Amino acid sequence: MSTFAPTNPDTGTDPYALKARRLGIDTYQEFVVYLRADSHVCKSEGFESLSRVELHWDDKHLVATLNVVTVDGFDALAPDEAGLSETAWRAFGGRDGDAVRLAHPAPVGSFAHVRAKIFGHAFADEALREIIADIREGHYSTVEMAAFLTACAGNRMNADETVALTRAMVAEGARLHWLQRQVVDKHCVGGVPGNRTTLILVPIVAALGLTIPKTSSRAITSPSGTADTMETLAPVSLDAAAMRKVVEAEGGCIVWGGGVNLSPVDDILIRVERPLDLDGEAQMVASVISKKVAAGSTHALIDIPIGPTAKIRSEIAGHTLAARLIEVGRTLGLEVDVILTDGSHPVGRGIGPALEARDVLAVLRNEAQAPADLRERALLLAGRLLEHAGHAAAGHGAALARTVLDDGRAWRKFGAIAHAQGGLREPAIAHRRHVIVAETAGTVARIDNRRLARIAKLAGAPRAPGAGVDLFAPAGARVSVGQPLYAVHAESPGELAYALDYARSQNNVLEIAPE
Amino acid sequence: MSTFAPTNPDTGTDPYALKARRLGIDTYQEFVVYLRADSHVCKSEGFESLSRVELHWDDKHLVATLNVVTVDGFDALAPDEAGLSETAWRAFGGRDGDAVRLAHPAPVGSFAHVRAKIFGHAFADEALREIIADIREGHYSTVEMAAFLTACAGNRMNADETVALTRAMVAEGARLHWLQRQVVDKHCVGGVPGNRTTLILVPIVAALGLTIPKTSSRAITSPSGTADTMETLAPVSLDAAAMRKVVEAEGGCIVWGGGVNLSPVDDILIRVERPLDLDGEAQMVASVISKKVAAGSTHALIDIPIGPTAKIRSEIAGHTLAARLIEVGRTLGLEVDVILTDGSHPVGRGIGPALEARDVLAVLRNEAQAPADLRERALLLAGRLLEHAGHAAAGHGAALARTVLDDGRAWRKFGAIAHAQGGLREPAIAHRRHVIVAETAGTVARIDNRRLARIAKLAGAPRAPGAGVDLFAPAGARVSVGQPLYAVHAESPGELAYALDYARSQNNVLEIAPE
Repeated sequence: MSTFAPTNPDTGTDPYALKARRLGIDTYQEFVVYLRADSHVCKSEGFESLSRVELHWDDKHLVATLNVVTVDGFDALAPDEAGLSETAWRAFGGRDGDAVRLAHPAPVGSFAHVRAKIFGHAFADEALREIIADIREGHYSTVEMAAFLTACAGNRMNADETVALTRAMVAEGARLHWLQRQVVDKHCVGGVPGNRTTLILVPIVAALGLTIPKTSSRAITSPSGTADTMETLAPVSLDAAAMRKVVEAEGGCIVWGGGVNLSPVDDILIRVERPLDLDGEAQMVASVISKKVAAGSTHALIDIPIGPTAKIRSEIAGHTLAARLIEVGRTLGLEVDVILTDGSHPVGRGIGPALEARDVLAVLRNEAQAPADLRERALLLAGRLLEHAGHAAAGHGAALARTVLDDGRAWRKFGAIAHAQGGLREPAIAHRRHVIVAETAGTVARIDNRRLARIAKLAGAPRAPGAGVDLFAPAGARVSVGQPLYAVHAESPGELAYALDYARSQNNVLEIAPE
Repeated sequence: MSTFAPTNPDTGTDPYALKARRLGIDTYQEFVVYLRADSHVCKSEGFESLSRVELHWDDKHLVATLNVVTVDGFDALAPDEAGLSETAWRAFGGRDGDAVRLAHPAPVGSFAHVRAKIFGHAFADEALREIIADIREGHYSTVEMAAFLTACAGNRMNADETVALTRAMVAEGARLHWLQRQVVDKHCVGGVPGNRTTLILVPIVAALGLTIPKTSSRAITSPSGTADTMETLAPVSLDAAAMRKVVEAEGGCIVWGGGVNLSPVDDILIRVERPLDLDGEAQMVASVISKKVAAGSTHALIDIPIGPTAKIRSEIAGHTLAARLIEVGRTLGLEVDVILTDGSHPVGRGIGPALEARDVLAVLRNEAQAPADLRERALLLAGRLLEHAGHAAAGHGAALARTVLDDGRAWRKFGAIAHAQGGLREPAIAHRRHVIVAETAGTVARIDNRRLARIAKLAGAPRAPGAGVDLFAPAGARVSVGQPLYAVHAESPGELAYALDYARSQNNVLEIAPE
């Protein structure tokens, strides 16, 4: 550490003292400190933009990236103030005007391991523990995290390194423990709109007596995450104690993972990884397995949808990923089963929180208009999980699941879980809607998942939970001219207009092949 | 491109229009746009922090990283304003209140090449051209640049890729052309304080009739760059036309490279690379060679100091780098000679712009107290360059250089160059000083370049050109108790105190071994 504590002979005061100031700037994960270029600290320490600086208060500190503020434009910051970005402000936990000091930080020691990896050396277990701990404590800048992720991508992580990375990520967060000998879980690698099988699978297996403490994510770039969809039906922001009560009472839950702090470094890295679109296999494996292990699961079913606009685009890539998931899971005491599914088109009809919830309710309530593909997909997955956990003989899981769904036990269990989480509610779909119709006749040959998702987002999903897309013409459907293809739902006329403007500017969101 | 131009049916106006606003925040190279979380664009487009956004005005656009500003803290920005960081503001070139629009950017196409490289594919020439052009145009975020630099590091770039990278960097900037058949140049890889041989070498070789249009950098993390030291003696911020006039009149110049825009992508990448401390060989080679080729040089001498606190730490690394520099230089029409020198301790006595300039003047004027090590180092390098350019037989270059220095021609030439650049001036050394003395007797065994440089920076160098460190006891000197080791110079009592506080907190900046 290069800190030292001088006294300014001119003034007798600590020349490095500044007043903390919340600026309200969201720099996402990175801690950023804003200093005026004419502040005495900036001048005497030779700090410049993109410098890493150490912010000290009481006996605590954090490392941040510096943005220097020139005096001519930005007059909200005084020369004796240190402006803090939102994450830095939360880590600081103080009040406006509290005294802080700035210093040059020691280099992040664990980054030497990243450099060694770049030069071809495998990570030792201890190296990955140090790196992940430093990332959790905010010692890595986004630039350093990008270098770490790049060094791990391109199949440069062997099985041992992937195991060590996963262990390190588990260690840096909370960990749930259950009295039950067997705890099951389910995860979908993602990329398929409307694929809300979790909300059907959880009550089926819980109704059969299995323990399934399911944590799910909110949307980051999609129109809805499982937690967003569930939230239109029941509260999901439960802490670990509240979640435990639900699971102990009902055998299962569907809550937001952010409330229980499982593998938090995964959430940090994913936001740097996503814009790079690197899909590093080791990161993907560590992400999935660390969440499941931290949740205390013993058996997990991983659904890998394969399709040109899904996350995994080929069967070979799917099988390679599956092998690594099973291998790493087993080493950490998690029995993993993997199923490759069709990810080429949306599942169900709704895209957006409330629209997806409506489909889920229709399936659970055995309504006639329930989307058959969502129902069958959920039964397939529930069946596989029942077989994987030893609750059904091979080939008999889906039939068992179907019985529980058909006789209403799944629906009753869902209601009980929702009640335990704070109360079941009906999803409110936005009434303002516009229907897009077919301009040519033929068969729906291809559906572009990504553009359909974008229309739903422009319409307001997931921020506006009632907004989204309602798909009437699934892949393979025959349509005539003027027949409805999909409806766009929005909560304001402006948002409806934006979404429709975009929809009309795109050809072939649904590709119709002439007969 | 995913832009489209909707009209808000509620208001009849362009819902994406915002007013540009200069915020004066220096985010270094990265373009950053600040939007209020409650702005209609943020809400309807689903933008979030760290999103990449496209800013449109007139028929121009730029791609920036978004920071979302929450309303509760930061009240300097209105909901209909788009705040711009300093670099974004300069690229925008408009005025406060000018209309801009935001859109989702198309993915940076060339980043697919970076991903392919990460997965083990070599870069094609065209791929590197596209990447470097995109970086120059500001299409890469710092995170993407970090991934690119990481993918290139660790000896993953072969000779062809290094050549292509160098060519691409030359192509993305200005290029100087000279009538002379032979144009010489000199470069030092750096890391050694006080090593200002350039200011002595240039007038020696120019006095002998060679053409040496030298461009130098300002300090980024050191207490002085060659351009900073020269600036205490003469103006250095010349544009290409003014530089050409100086070279045509005097055969040589020593100007700041930033004024002539040679290989500007090097300057962009170096600021992302430096905090990562990756020392990627291909980047280092492309950096050096692209600057020399863009400057129109035909023969260059590269000085690689080797030492534990220098940039290159082993002879093996020095020779490996040398081989690649020669190979890539030759392919691009630049004859490179490399010399490995002792980088284990400072050269000369002064560290800081004016103190270094004082040493340079003493050598050029043949003063008795001139630092012998600086003088001999400059003669060695000048001699090697004269031999490399064919102006002296092998082994006779240093003697020829010595003649020109001893008889005053080098000093007269330096004066003429300084005059042509705008006028020779005397460097002004800060009079406020404090001397650090030896507390034990013995021999100066080791000098820590990095901590000595830090003391000079805390004293104010290079911002305060008169500040820095004056070293009295070079490596190998015998000292008794109370004998002066070095003096710290500063322009204000506060800065002197900060530097001394740090100096006193560090043991063994000069390590004294007992006899």
